[in-house]
Amino acid sequence: MLPSSFACAEASIAGGADPFVRVLVYLVVILVAAKLGAELFERIGQPAVLGELVAGVILGNLVLVHGSWSFFQPLRAAVLTDHAAIGIDILAKIGIIILLFEVGLESSVKEMRRVGISSFLVAVIGVVLPFILGYFVSAIFITKVPAGILALSPNFSIQNIHMFIGATLCATSVGITARVFKDMARIQTPEARIVLGAAVIDDVLGLIILAIVSAVVSSAETGNELSVLQIVKLTVIAVGFLLGALIIGIYFIPNLMKVAAKFRTQGLMLITSILICFGLSALANEAGLASIVGAFAAGLILEEIHFREFDAKVGIRDLIQPISIVFVPIFFVLMGIQVHLESFFVPSVIGISGGLIVAAMIGKQACGLVVREKNIDRITVGIGMIPRGEVGLIFASIGKALGVIDNDIFSAVVIMVIVTAFVTPPLLKWSIARAERKREPEA
Amino acid sequence: MLPSSFACAEASIAGGADPFVRVLVYLVVILVAAKLGAELFERIGQPAVLGELVAGVILGNLVLVHGSWSFFQPLRAAVLTDHAAIGIDILAKIGIIILLFEVGLESSVKEMRRVGISSFLVAVIGVVLPFILGYFVSAIFITKVPAGILALSPNFSIQNIHMFIGATLCATSVGITARVFKDMARIQTPEARIVLGAAVIDDVLGLIILAIVSAVVSSAETGNELSVLQIVKLTVIAVGFLLGALIIGIYFIPNLMKVAAKFRTQGLMLITSILICFGLSALANEAGLASIVGAFAAGLILEEIHFREFDAKVGIRDLIQPISIVFVPIFFVLMGIQVHLESFFVPSVIGISGGLIVAAMIGKQACGLVVREKNIDRITVGIGMIPRGEVGLIFASIGKALGVIDNDIFSAVVIMVIVTAFVTPPLLKWSIARAERKREPEA
Repeated sequence: MLPSSFACAEASIAGGADPFVRVLVYLVVILVAAKLGAELFERIGQPAVLGELVAGVILGNLVLVHGSWSFFQPLRAAVLTDHAAIGIDILAKIGIIILLFEVGLESSVKEMRRVGISSFLVAVIGVVLPFILGYFVSAIFITKVPAGILALSPNFSIQNIHMFIGATLCATSVGITARVFKDMARIQTPEARIVLGAAVIDDVLGLIILAIVSAVVSSAETGNELSVLQIVKLTVIAVGFLLGALIIGIYFIPNLMKVAAKFRTQGLMLITSILICFGLSALANEAGLASIVGAFAAGLILEEIHFREFDAKVGIRDLIQPISIVFVPIFFVLMGIQVHLESFFVPSVIGISGGLIVAAMIGKQACGLVVREKNIDRITVGIGMIPRGEVGLIFASIGKALGVIDNDIFSAVVIMVIVTAFVTPPLLKWSIARAERKREPEA
Repeated sequence: MLPSSFACAEASIAGGADPFVRVLVYLVVILVAAKLGAELFERIGQPAVLGELVAGVILGNLVLVHGSWSFFQPLRAAVLTDHAAIGIDILAKIGIIILLFEVGLESSVKEMRRVGISSFLVAVIGVVLPFILGYFVSAIFITKVPAGILALSPNFSIQNIHMFIGATLCATSVGITARVFKDMARIQTPEARIVLGAAVIDDVLGLIILAIVSAVVSSAETGNELSVLQIVKLTVIAVGFLLGALIIGIYFIPNLMKVAAKFRTQGLMLITSILICFGLSALANEAGLASIVGAFAAGLILEEIHFREFDAKVGIRDLIQPISIVFVPIFFVLMGIQVHLESFFVPSVIGISGGLIVAAMIGKQACGLVVREKNIDRITVGIGMIPRGEVGLIFASIGKALGVIDNDIFSAVVIMVIVTAFVTPPLLKWSIARAERKREPEA
């Protein structure tokens, strides 16, 4: 920051190195790319979200075409240190929180309860089967502890690696599926309800498994005994959160809204909703869950009915939409930017990632079979559960931090996450159309 | 990130140290405080923005009450390093960009031209007089180079310090004044037009002075000769930007909108407007101006007329408003949080800051005298030009980076910025009401 020449002083005033200006430039490029990608994919009959992902992959991998096109490299670091990259990452995360909040707003507790048992069964199968399959894929491809995994204690065994890889396959990323259902205006269908409900329960189950597996790995490395009490505590907190949020929310929110309606300042309805959304997201995280679970719960309890206190011309969904239009695409483009296409050329990475992709896809197909309701398209449910998205990425990065996942396994997990994200929209689109064609002659 | 025990693993999963979760918690606290402060001040007849500033001052200085209430300390560092703090800072800056964009949207080039000459004269007086007064205040209070100013070369003289302090008094911060006019629904008055127009020109003039003073200081420190060509270049770029943006914008934007209107994806009107706003903000910065100048210019050229291509039920102002409601208060609360009340107890700081406050306020009062139009309240114009706000803070931080401003002078400048920000809303409110009372019997 201390310029030693006129040129430097000019640069510091012109803000060439100002992180905020780079945030603005990143945002302009990301949003232009998102809209061009979305437009192109909509015109060829694909969901807009896939266009945003592809636009991101192109932006991020331009550096492979020419080494000096490295503008997006700071956004692709394993650990973000660049201030502008940290800013974009936070804006992207606000985007995914807002998306899950919107999805929650379009759902209601009553409807969720109606598909509750099915969602629960789908979720349990969708966690247990991928975990077992992931464990075996790992056992087939990883026969000895890779050299890349350091910091071993005598207690550390190769089974710890298998367990962790199994865990990364557990959690469904509801973001992409929700976006496809939303883009196709099918968010109100029973299939969407079951998948979105299951993805939430699934997230809870997946994070409990992650917490337990992490604890097992950590105690294996340090040689400490893992207390059963700690595992039980983790589990109780996680399960209790959603139930607690829903029950308290339903009784507490209407009263809060009555108070907020008495305020004179503008925008209270929007601010109160955003506060509940951000507040529950932070609370979910405190409870050991992904923050998106809290955002979904916030949307779920904030049914339009709570806003009757306000003399509002527009509903909360209309108020959230402009924020969603600007922030949600940032997340999907950033996910694309963080794909390293060069990983696809490492043979060992292709082997394990191929196995993981098959395990990830097959593991969720059994989900459809346990749906109890009639006239539900089981294939659509199974396909809707495929994407691992940001949850898979979060799991992989925790494994890397724990020292149980090395760079190659990490790349394989990332590729699995990307492929499941990429195949889901066209498969889901195909499946929904097929199911509706099948249903129409009957109706 | 590498947990060595179960407790750590739990913490990393629960996200206790996750910067994004802390961003969410900061946002919840900041937005609750903003709304409570705004509500309280509106009820006692003060502008909402002052309530948000005071709420911020209270939050930031809670640490003085009890040392362990240090939750907001990361937001108060001279150079932000904490990831969550960087995130909040970027969200606040997006807020101020959106506010200036909104202010620009509520103005039009035609109206700006109508008050153009007055705005220009007001701006010139408002830059020249405070610069001279600031120089003399500095010369009275600073008789030798303070020990805190290091990295001196034999060429560095005390006049460099006086010049820089004078420069920090130049630029009017349009944010607070715009917000007061907006809160009072007086943004369409000729007084508001002149002040907002002058603040923009003023910003350009102030930043040219800053660029030149910085260059003089840098060359004095390094002993390099400063080329006249470089000063001319800086000046031409800065002046050319606004004119260029306006002229190109008026011819280019309607065509861009015609293309955007052909897109099928949702939210194109909003996204295109946001892109023009962010793009011009980044460009302004590249041209050596504050990014808010670009945001204002973007609003100015995006008159509603450009949206007739779109089959829109709501205007662009309605679409921007939800984003503004959430993001703008973050900026004002953050400005309050960054006030260090303990500085007020250092005698030397009080002396120079008192002198600067007087210079800052008197220096802008002459502005009203050069207004040519009749039936304009000159006192309102003079008061509207008082706040230095974020521009003054930016200037002071650049001076600190250049090594020409030490910690004490920095505190004095910050206090001047705070006091001018605090006195403006009640003074302006009083002045507007007084002028309207005076006018009514005549009408």
